[in-house]
Amino acid sequence: MARGRTERVLVHRYEAGTDGPPRREPDELIVEEPLEIHLDGTLVATTMRTPGHDFELAAGFCHAEGLLGGATVRRCRYCAIGSAVESGFNVVEVDTGGLAPPPRPRLQATTSACGMCGSDAVDELRERLHPLPVGEPWPLDLLASLPERAVAAQPLFGRTGAVHAAAAFDRDGELVVLREDIGRHNAVDKVVGHLLLDGAVPASDLALYASGRASFEIVQKAWAAGMRAVVAVSAPSALAVAAADQARITLCGFARGAGMNVYVGL
Amino acid sequence: MARGRTERVLVHRYEAGTDGPPRREPDELIVEEPLEIHLDGTLVATTMRTPGHDFELAAGFCHAEGLLGGATVRRCRYCAIGSAVESGFNVVEVDTGGLAPPPRPRLQATTSACGMCGSDAVDELRERLHPLPVGEPWPLDLLASLPERAVAAQPLFGRTGAVHAAAAFDRDGELVVLREDIGRHNAVDKVVGHLLLDGAVPASDLALYASGRASFEIVQKAWAAGMRAVVAVSAPSALAVAAADQARITLCGFARGAGMNVYVGL
Repeated sequence: MARGRTERVLVHRYEAGTDGPPRREPDELIVEEPLEIHLDGTLVATTMRTPGHDFELAAGFCHAEGLLGGATVRRCRYCAIGSAVESGFNVVEVDTGGLAPPPRPRLQATTSACGMCGSDAVDELRERLHPLPVGEPWPLDLLASLPERAVAAQPLFGRTGAVHAAAAFDRDGELVVLREDIGRHNAVDKVVGHLLLDGAVPASDLALYASGRASFEIVQKAWAAGMRAVVAVSAPSALAVAAADQARITLCGFARGAGMNVYVGL
Repeated sequence: MARGRTERVLVHRYEAGTDGPPRREPDELIVEEPLEIHLDGTLVATTMRTPGHDFELAAGFCHAEGLLGGATVRRCRYCAIGSAVESGFNVVEVDTGGLAPPPRPRLQATTSACGMCGSDAVDELRERLHPLPVGEPWPLDLLASLPERAVAAQPLFGRTGAVHAAAAFDRDGELVVLREDIGRHNAVDKVVGHLLLDGAVPASDLALYASGRASFEIVQKAWAAGMRAVVAVSAPSALAVAAADQARITLCGFARGAGMNVYVGL
């Protein structure tokens, strides 16, 4: 399925202090479209994403959110009901043959159970995911080299400047899979979904690279995939650090050039 | 309510090619906590956000998503049911006295109505929001100056490197309101919510600044707030450009230094 992930346009380039009107210049934009994710016939999420690797995105999302409940994904398919074929490519059905638990409605009346605080959120994850088994530590020089290795494999970023990347690397520093998407979380879901559909989850011998910040949800997705190291180019949040600590995930941030900060795992 | 928006930690700083173990260094992390947004007693969203300006975030979100249906926000309050006071500050109730339309459940069985494509999404917005009235064009030199004006007012970014900012500026280039948040959308919701609770929406004489990329949802939020100019530091998506075109919003991207690209509005 060759669907455009970028779109070429002409823009006006304005430069302060330059005479004359802004000049026309070609530019390449990243495509962003809504994707509905259905699990066994029930809509579980709508996300704005860059088209491509949609099955991985849908499967990875369901896995990271704990919606599969241990069930295996039997197949993914585009929903093509109705005549609007193009629109059908914005709906993915994840099929477990009904083995996944029925999704809980996300819209519900207020109850006396007040909202979670951050530590509740981490506790909830720990209950669902359990701390990862202790494994061989990742060499820091290898982790510090991941950003450079990843950038070499990011075609869309160079052309649009508008996408995030996520990738999985093995212990030899070899790239296993890299995905780009306008959404940070989507890129990670695509990587995890790729591993999941390949039967490679838990991915206990892979490290996750994220081109942006490490938020709580990025660590949650790595945790759900059993990945014991996360390297982010930018900063982690306080809650991401707390989650990594509970998961026993080595969490590195500000990984640029030859240096990085190690937040958890030393 | 003085709640911490950052947290100080000690990290290990690794530098390749340096002898000895990584050295300890202080670092400041941005706080990230879940916020439940309730509208007239019904849970409509849970978002990971940086605490602070939560009423603005909740009101701005409901407005941008079209959940208010024209109803006025009578008040916002933290939900403090139960004994866990801290958790109570992660739930905000937006109260319109029941005048907002009942929120539609976000989880529903698959129907024959297949998912939206990008242009459907823009069409839907156009139906709800209508193109903005034609107004006085914004001077390009003023728009190009917004990033520099905004950065001077971003205290958290300097300390954590992990937050996005959004801001509203008037036609004299004066900063009306700036908000920082770990989430790009949250920062914009806080700005719009601030204007909304101030009775300043539609904000037809204000421009929106966003520190990151201009995705579809950023343009949607500006459109819902009646703002006719959006300046982003990074790239817009193709769908954001399409939405701005329909809205008659001047959309600028890659606004850095003294230059920027004008995608729509010239």
